[in-house]
Amino acid sequence: MSQKRVYLFREGNSDMRNSLGGKGANLAEMTNAGLPVPPGLTITTETCIEYIDNGNEMPAGLMDSIKKALEDVEKETGKKFGSVDNPLLLSVRSGARLSMPGMMETILNLGLNDDTLKGLISLTNNDRFAYDSYRRFLSMFGGVVLDIDKDEFEHRLDKVKKSKGVDLDTDLDTEALKEVVTAYKALIKEKTGKDFPQDPMTQLQLAVEAVFKSWNIPRAVAYRNHYKIDHRYGTAVNVQSMVFGNMGNDSATGVSFTRNPSDGENIFYGEYLTNAQGEDVVAGIRTPKPISELAVEMPALYKEYVDIAQKLERHYQDIQDMEFTIERGKLYILQTRSGKRTAKAALKIAVDLEKEGIINKEKALQLVDPSQLYQLLLPSFDLKAKDKAVKDGKLLATGLNASPGAATGMLIFDPTEAAERAEKGEKVILTRIETCPDDIHGMIPSQGVLTARGGMTSHAAVVARGMGKPCVAGCESLKVDLAKETVTNAEGKTFKKGEIISLDGGTGEVFVGAIATVDPELGGDFDQLLEWADEVKRLVVRANADTPEDAEKAIELGAKGIGLCRTEHMFMAQDRLPVVQQMILAGTAEARKEALAKLLPFQYEDFKAIFKSMNDLPVTVRLLDPPLHEFLPNHEELLAEVVELRVKGNNPKLLKEKEELLEKVSELSESNPMMGLRGCRLGLTYPEINEMQVRAIFQAACDLKKEGMDVKPEVMIPLVGHVNELKTAREQLESVAKEVMSEKGVDVDYQFGTMIEIPRAALTADEVAEYAQFFSFGTNDLTQMTFGFSRDDAEAKFLTNYTEKQILLENPFETLDQDGVGQLMKIAIEKGQSTRPNIKLGICGEHGGDPKSVKFCNLIGLNYVSCSPFRVPIARLSAAQAVIEQQEKKVLLTK
Amino acid sequence: MSQKRVYLFREGNSDMRNSLGGKGANLAEMTNAGLPVPPGLTITTETCIEYIDNGNEMPAGLMDSIKKALEDVEKETGKKFGSVDNPLLLSVRSGARLSMPGMMETILNLGLNDDTLKGLISLTNNDRFAYDSYRRFLSMFGGVVLDIDKDEFEHRLDKVKKSKGVDLDTDLDTEALKEVVTAYKALIKEKTGKDFPQDPMTQLQLAVEAVFKSWNIPRAVAYRNHYKIDHRYGTAVNVQSMVFGNMGNDSATGVSFTRNPSDGENIFYGEYLTNAQGEDVVAGIRTPKPISELAVEMPALYKEYVDIAQKLERHYQDIQDMEFTIERGKLYILQTRSGKRTAKAALKIAVDLEKEGIINKEKALQLVDPSQLYQLLLPSFDLKAKDKAVKDGKLLATGLNASPGAATGMLIFDPTEAAERAEKGEKVILTRIETCPDDIHGMIPSQGVLTARGGMTSHAAVVARGMGKPCVAGCESLKVDLAKETVTNAEGKTFKKGEIISLDGGTGEVFVGAIATVDPELGGDFDQLLEWADEVKRLVVRANADTPEDAEKAIELGAKGIGLCRTEHMFMAQDRLPVVQQMILAGTAEARKEALAKLLPFQYEDFKAIFKSMNDLPVTVRLLDPPLHEFLPNHEELLAEVVELRVKGNNPKLLKEKEELLEKVSELSESNPMMGLRGCRLGLTYPEINEMQVRAIFQAACDLKKEGMDVKPEVMIPLVGHVNELKTAREQLESVAKEVMSEKGVDVDYQFGTMIEIPRAALTADEVAEYAQFFSFGTNDLTQMTFGFSRDDAEAKFLTNYTEKQILLENPFETLDQDGVGQLMKIAIEKGQSTRPNIKLGICGEHGGDPKSVKFCNLIGLNYVSCSPFRVPIARLSAAQAVIEQQEKKVLLTK
Repeated sequence: MSQKRVYLFREGNSDMRNSLGGKGANLAEMTNAGLPVPPGLTITTETCIEYIDNGNEMPAGLMDSIKKALEDVEKETGKKFGSVDNPLLLSVRSGARLSMPGMMETILNLGLNDDTLKGLISLTNNDRFAYDSYRRFLSMFGGVVLDIDKDEFEHRLDKVKKSKGVDLDTDLDTEALKEVVTAYKALIKEKTGKDFPQDPMTQLQLAVEAVFKSWNIPRAVAYRNHYKIDHRYGTAVNVQSMVFGNMGNDSATGVSFTRNPSDGENIFYGEYLTNAQGEDVVAGIRTPKPISELAVEMPALYKEYVDIAQKLERHYQDIQDMEFTIERGKLYILQTRSGKRTAKAALKIAVDLEKEGIINKEKALQLVDPSQLYQLLLPSFDLKAKDKAVKDGKLLATGLNASPGAATGMLIFDPTEAAERAEKGEKVILTRIETCPDDIHGMIPSQGVLTARGGMTSHAAVVARGMGKPCVAGCESLKVDLAKETVTNAEGKTFKKGEIISLDGGTGEVFVGAIATVDPELGGDFDQLLEWADEVKRLVVRANADTPEDAEKAIELGAKGIGLCRTEHMFMAQDRLPVVQQMILAGTAEARKEALAKLLPFQYEDFKAIFKSMNDLPVTVRLLDPPLHEFLPNHEELLAEVVELRVKGNNPKLLKEKEELLEKVSELSESNPMMGLRGCRLGLTYPEINEMQVRAIFQAACDLKKEGMDVKPEVMIPLVGHVNELKTAREQLESVAKEVMSEKGVDVDYQFGTMIEIPRAALTADEVAEYAQFFSFGTNDLTQMTFGFSRDDAEAKFLTNYTEKQILLENPFETLDQDGVGQLMKIAIEKGQSTRPNIKLGICGEHGGDPKSVKFCNLIGLNYVSCSPFRVPIARLSAAQAVIEQQEKKVLLTK
Repeated sequence: MSQKRVYLFREGNSDMRNSLGGKGANLAEMTNAGLPVPPGLTITTETCIEYIDNGNEMPAGLMDSIKKALEDVEKETGKKFGSVDNPLLLSVRSGARLSMPGMMETILNLGLNDDTLKGLISLTNNDRFAYDSYRRFLSMFGGVVLDIDKDEFEHRLDKVKKSKGVDLDTDLDTEALKEVVTAYKALIKEKTGKDFPQDPMTQLQLAVEAVFKSWNIPRAVAYRNHYKIDHRYGTAVNVQSMVFGNMGNDSATGVSFTRNPSDGENIFYGEYLTNAQGEDVVAGIRTPKPISELAVEMPALYKEYVDIAQKLERHYQDIQDMEFTIERGKLYILQTRSGKRTAKAALKIAVDLEKEGIINKEKALQLVDPSQLYQLLLPSFDLKAKDKAVKDGKLLATGLNASPGAATGMLIFDPTEAAERAEKGEKVILTRIETCPDDIHGMIPSQGVLTARGGMTSHAAVVARGMGKPCVAGCESLKVDLAKETVTNAEGKTFKKGEIISLDGGTGEVFVGAIATVDPELGGDFDQLLEWADEVKRLVVRANADTPEDAEKAIELGAKGIGLCRTEHMFMAQDRLPVVQQMILAGTAEARKEALAKLLPFQYEDFKAIFKSMNDLPVTVRLLDPPLHEFLPNHEELLAEVVELRVKGNNPKLLKEKEELLEKVSELSESNPMMGLRGCRLGLTYPEINEMQVRAIFQAACDLKKEGMDVKPEVMIPLVGHVNELKTAREQLESVAKEVMSEKGVDVDYQFGTMIEIPRAALTADEVAEYAQFFSFGTNDLTQMTFGFSRDDAEAKFLTNYTEKQILLENPFETLDQDGVGQLMKIAIEKGQSTRPNIKLGICGEHGGDPKSVKFCNLIGLNYVSCSPFRVPIARLSAAQAVIEQQEKKVLLTK
C-alpha cells in the first residue's frame, strides 16, 4: 500500500467521502471554505481495512505519516503535542463513509499527562478546567482504549462526589477533581496491571487503533447488517486539535439542526450547555438549554453561528446537523452533516427548500427516502401511549416487523371466525402459528396478523404487506395453541381468545390491551412531491390488485393501471372454494367443466368490477398460477384425521370419505410444489380452467365496452419456460377470446403476454417474444430459480445466516440481485426486443416497490413497474429519483 | 408454396432424404445407378405438412403434378393408368425422413377396377392372378382408405375358404376369388354406403391422402414420441408401378439382409415366398422360406440379386435391408435401406466392414449407435440355472431368437395393461399372437416380447431389435388365447395372465418362472471399436462412482478417473445411518461434533478404498449435498404413528419419544427441499460436517501417499450460487486440508472446485472462477432450476403430456436442453475462462452418459464427461463420434 493514508483537513474535499468518511470530508470542505474549524487530520478508511487485514497491526510507516501531519497542525495552532509549555490536545473520532451515529468510539483531550497538565494550567490559568479535562480524558481513554468498564469510573467519581457532598460534576472543586484523577489512575493500574501511559504519542497510537478496532465491535457489525452496509468499507479516524467548551462561562458547546428534524418546521433547533464538553450535552446528566437561549446569552456568537449554519444548509442543500464549541468567546464548528429526520419532516423540508429557492425540484425529490413514504400512509401508535404500555409491563413479546402499522383487536385464532366477527364490526387480530392461502378470508378483514413462525417473506408477511395490513411474523417466543385457542409468552403468561392485543408492525412489538393511535395526515407536501415525481419519472407505475377495493386504493395513490391481478385470490373466497374443490376433485373433464361453469359467473363479476374501478386503464390478468393442492385441505391434517378414524373404527362412512379425499390430496401433492404443476403447466394439463377464465375476462370486457367503456385487458400466461408452452396456450386461449367477442358482437383492445420468471424463458426470450406482446418480470420466482432458493424455506433455514455473515449483502427477495437475476433480465430484454422491438416490458414481483430495484428497472429500460397499492407512492418517487440519478450518472450498471 | 412437390425417381438423389424420405431417396439413387427398379414418383414430405396445415385438404395443383409425373411413368412402362388394354397398376407407400418400419400404410395394386381387371386378365392370361390381385387391392383399400376393420375382410375370406373346404389362400381357385371380390365390394357398400370407387385417379387421390393422414395416427405419433422424431417432418408418398410376385411359380417376393442382423455374421440372410405378394411374407400366414433356398430354386436370379445387394452394401457402406420381387423370371428391387440390427451385430458389422476394407475406422465408429452398447453390458441368463430349468421341465416352448437378451416378467396380453403395470414398476412380458404397430405403447415398457407367429423380420422382431429389447418371435407351438388371457404349450399346459415367465432372446427359449442371470462377456469387437474410439476422441471420460466396487467397474469399462463421488451414499449405509441421525438430531454443536467423530473413521476408510481402486487417477469428491431430513424417518409415517399412539394411549413412553422425533423431523422438513438447506448451504450452516469430510479425504490421501501412491483428490463444493459461498467454504475447508497435511507431514496434489448447477453460478462464473480450480456442470440440478421443473414431480405430473404434445421434443432430464441449459453452460465457460483460462471443465449430471449431450459437451469445449460406470462405453463412443461429426460439420451450435 503506497497510497496516501493521512490527509490534513485542508488537503481533502467533499468528493473524498469514501476515503475520508463523511465527517472527514465535511471537515475538509468547511476548512477550505474558511469556516472556523479547529485544524486536524484524517486517517483514511482504507487504512482501517489495511489494519484489520494486517491482523490488527499498525501498517508500517503509518505513525510516521501521522506525526508528519501533526507537525502541520502544530504549526497552525502554534501549540505542540506533548509540550509542557503550550500543549496541543487532540480529539480522536471515527467517521465512516455512511453515517453510523453513536456506533463508534470517541476520545477527547488526548495528549494530557502529568506534565502537559501543568502546561494547560499555566496556559489557561484555570486549575479546575485542567483537572476536569484530565479526569475526562482518563475515563474515556480507560474505557475506550483500555477496555475498562465505564461504570468503574462512575463509581470512583460518585464516591468523591459523595464525600464532598455535591450532586453535579460542575460542583466539584479542583481539589476534588485531583482526587478523582488519582482514583482513576489507580483504577487503570489495578485493571491493566500497568501505569496509565504518559507518552502522548503512545496515547495517540492506542487511540487510533481503538477506533480501527471499533469497526468490528458487535454493535457496529449488527448496525451494518441492518442497514446493508458493506463490512469492507472501514472507518476513517479524525484527529483534531481540541477546543474547549468547558473553559468557563464564556465557553459553551452544543448541537443543532437547521430545521426541526421531527416535523420539518423551518426554525433553528438545538441544545447547548455553557462550561461543558460535548459529551455532557448528550449524556443527559445536565439538562441542556434550547439553542434559542444562546441568542440571549451570546447574541453575536449566536448570529455568527446561525449565519454559518444557513450558509452550510445552502451549500449542502439539506438540513444540517451540526456541533459547535465556543471557547472563551470564540466560535468553532466541529462537525456538520445531513440531519436524520422523520418521513413527515423529510417531505416538508424538501418542499420548503424548493420554495425557498435553495434547491430545485430534482434535488427536492432526492431529499426524501422513498421507503419512508410507506409509514406516512398508515395509522401509528401514539408514542406516549406506547411508552406507558411498556412501562406498565404490557409488552408481551417481540417478533419480526413484517408489515408496518398499528393494529388493535381481539385475539382470534380461526380465520373463519375472524371473518364472521369482522362482518359484525368487531376488530380482530388473526393469530396463527403460520398462515397459508386458506386463511386469506380471515386475514382480509382483520386489523392485523400475528404469527409464531415464518420470516419476513413468509406467507403472512408477504400477503399483509401486499394489503398494507400490520403484521408481526415469526414471533417465536409465543406458543400458539390452536386447539385451546390460547397464546402463551416466554414468561408463561397465557392469553385467551377474545382478549384485546395490539401489534406494532413497524417494530414487531406485541402488547396486551389497546393503545391509542394517530391517523396519518397526508398534507400538501406529499401530493406536491409526488406531483414533481410524476413530472420527472419515465417509468409508469401500476399496482398489483386482486379486488375492486385494492384497485380503488391503487388509483387513489396514483397507479396508472394494474400490472398484476392474481386470479387465484378470487378462487379462495369463501363462497367459491367449495366449487373450486369440486372442480379439482372431479374425476372427468366433464365433471370439471360442470364445476367450472359454476365459477364462470363469479369470475365474470370479479373482472367486471375490477375493470370498472380502473376506468379504462390497462389491467393485466394473470391466469391461475398456484398448484391445485393449495385449494385443498392440508395433507397432514387429513392424514392425522384418517389415522384417528381408522384406529377408532367407529365411523366407517366418514373414514371412507376422508380416505378418498386423502388419496386425491396425496395424488396432487408434490415434493417441490414451487417447481411443479402450476402456472401454464396447469393450463396445458387442464385447458378448460384457463378457458373459463379467458371467457370471463372477455365477457366482462365486451359487456363494459357495450356500456361505453374502453377496457384494455392484458392476459398474462404465467411460468412459461419454453416458447411452445406460450404458443400452445395462447393459440388455444386467443381462440376463446375471439369466440366470445364474436358472440358479443364487439371487439376489445387486448393483448396476450407472459411472465418472465423462469430462467429459461429469459435465456430464450427471442423465441418467447414471438408469441408475447408483453413481458412482465416475475422477479419473485425468477429469484427463486436463479438462486435455487425456495423462498418458503430459505429465510428460516439459512438466509439469515447468509446476510449476517454477509455471504449475501442483501436478501435477494427484498432487493433485486442485479448481478444474477438482473443479468437474466437484461438478456431477456435484449433478446425480446430483437424479435419484437416494441415489446412492452414490466415487473410485477415485489421488487417493483423496492426503491433500489425500481431504479435498476429504470436503468435497464422497463416501461412500467407494478407493486402493491401502498407501495405505489414509493415506486413513483423512486422512479423519479432513478431518472435524476441516471442523469447524474450515480447509478451505473454493475456488469 | 411454389416448391416442386412431385419428383420422378430419376429426378431425385440420396441427398434429398429430407424431402423424399429415406425410401424415396434410395429408390431415386438406385434408379440412377441403373438397378432394376420399377419406375415411379415421390410426393415430398413438405407436401404432407402442407396437406395437414391445410386442414387435411389437397393443395391446389398437386393432383395435376401427380398426373403429369404419372404420364412419364406410363411412358417408361409402356402401360397406361386406367387403361383396359394395358393397365398400369401402382403401389402407394409412405416413406418418412427417418425409417419408421410398419408405422405407415401401404396400398398395392391400385388402379384395378372392374374394367382394368379385364385388361389384366387378357394381358397375363391368368384369371386367378388377376382376381387375387383385385381382392387384395379391395381389402387394402377398404382397410386403409375407407377405414373398414380389416377383420371384416378376413371374415368374408374365411367364409369362402370354409365353403370351399380349403385352408390356404393360395388354394382358392378363380371362382372362389370371384366370390371373395363380390363379397368385398358388398362389404364396402355396406360400410360406406357407397360403391367402391372405380375411377383410378380417385383411388390414387384417396390413397395419397390416406398416407398423408397416416402421419398423425396414434401409433405413428407414439412411435415418433418414443424416438424423438419431430412431428413436423411429415412423410413422403412413393407411387410406384407394380410388379407381381404372385404371377405363378416363376414369381416370388422376399426381404433380405446383406448380413445377419441378429449377430452380424457375414452371410446373406432373408426370407421369401414364391407366388406371393410382399404382405404375405411379413403377415405370418404362410411361413416363408430361407433365402438360401432361392439359390436352389432360381440360381441365376439369386446370383443377380446377391450381386446387387453387395454392390448396394458397398455403396451405402452399411448392412442393407432390401425388398425384391421376381415377376415371371425378372428381378426387381423395390427398396433398400440400412438394416436395423442388434448391438452385437452392429459391433461385428462395423469392425468387419473395416477389416474388409469397405469402410475406414471413422465410418466404423459411426455405424454403432452408442446407446446400443448399453444392452451388451446387460446380464444374460446363467447357463447352469437355465440347464436346471430345462431339466426341471420349465422350458415351455422355443421360438425364433428374434432379439437377444434375458427377460423375466409376468405374462401380460394386453398392451395397455402392460403399459399400466410397467408404470407401477411391475415387470411384464408382452405376449401376443403377433404384434402390430398399434401395440408399440405396450412393447416399449415391457421386459421382453413374445409372439406366436411371425418371422425374423416380423413387426415384433424388427421393433424389438431396434429397441434392444429381448424378443422371441414365431413361437408357433404356443397357443395364445387373447380372450381368456392364457397361453397353452404343445404339451397342453396352460399359463395364465400374471404368471412369471422368462425369455432368452438369444436362443428363442421360453421358460416358466424366473432364471438367475450372469454378467456379460465382452468380446473383441467391443474392445476393438472402443480402442478406435479412444484414438479419435478428445474428451476424457470419467465415471460417477461412490464405492470401490463402482470404481473398479468404471476402470474396467475404460473410465479415466472419478468425476463424481457422492459422499451421501456413504452416509446411507446400514452401520452409519444411526450415527448420522444422532448427528442430525444433536441439539448442540458439541453433540454434533461427537457424532461426527464417530463418522470420521468410516469416511476415512471409504475414501482410502476408493482412492486405492482408482490407482492414482483423479477422484472428485462432492461434499454432503442432500437435505438432512433425507436421513431421517419419513415424516408422514411418523405422523401416522404418533396419531395412532395418541389415540390408543397405551404407550406414553414410546409416544413421547416419537413425538420428539416428529418435532425434529418437522423442523427439518421444507416446502421445496430441492431448493432448500442442502449443498454448500448445509456446509455453511453446520461447518463441522464438511470439515470432518475434508479431514477424512486428506487423511486417506496422505496415508496412501506415504504408501507410495500419488492420490489426486479434487474437493467439490456443491450448489454454489454466489461467489461468497464458495469463498467462505473453500477458505474454511482448505485450512483443514492444510492442517491434516501438516499433521501427516506430506503434501498431496489437490484441487478445490465447485459444481455449476445453479443458474446464478453460471451467470456469475467469472467471479466464481476466482475460487474454483474446476467447474463440474451438475446438469441435473441446472436443468431443474433453468426450467423450474422439479424432477421428482414433473415426469409424473406434466412432462409426459409435454413430450406427447411435443411442447418439448425431448425430456430435458434425459437429453441436455442446448438452447436453455446449454446456453448457461456456454456463458459459464466463457466467463470462467475469462478469469481462469485453464480452468478444468467437466460434467457430472446424467447427461454425461447421453450420446447427444456428450456431443454437445465436446462442441462447447469441456475437458471431461462423467457418467455411471455402465455408460462409460457409451460416452467413449459418443465422444469419438462427436469429433468425427464435428469434422464433418454435422453438429452445429444452435445459437
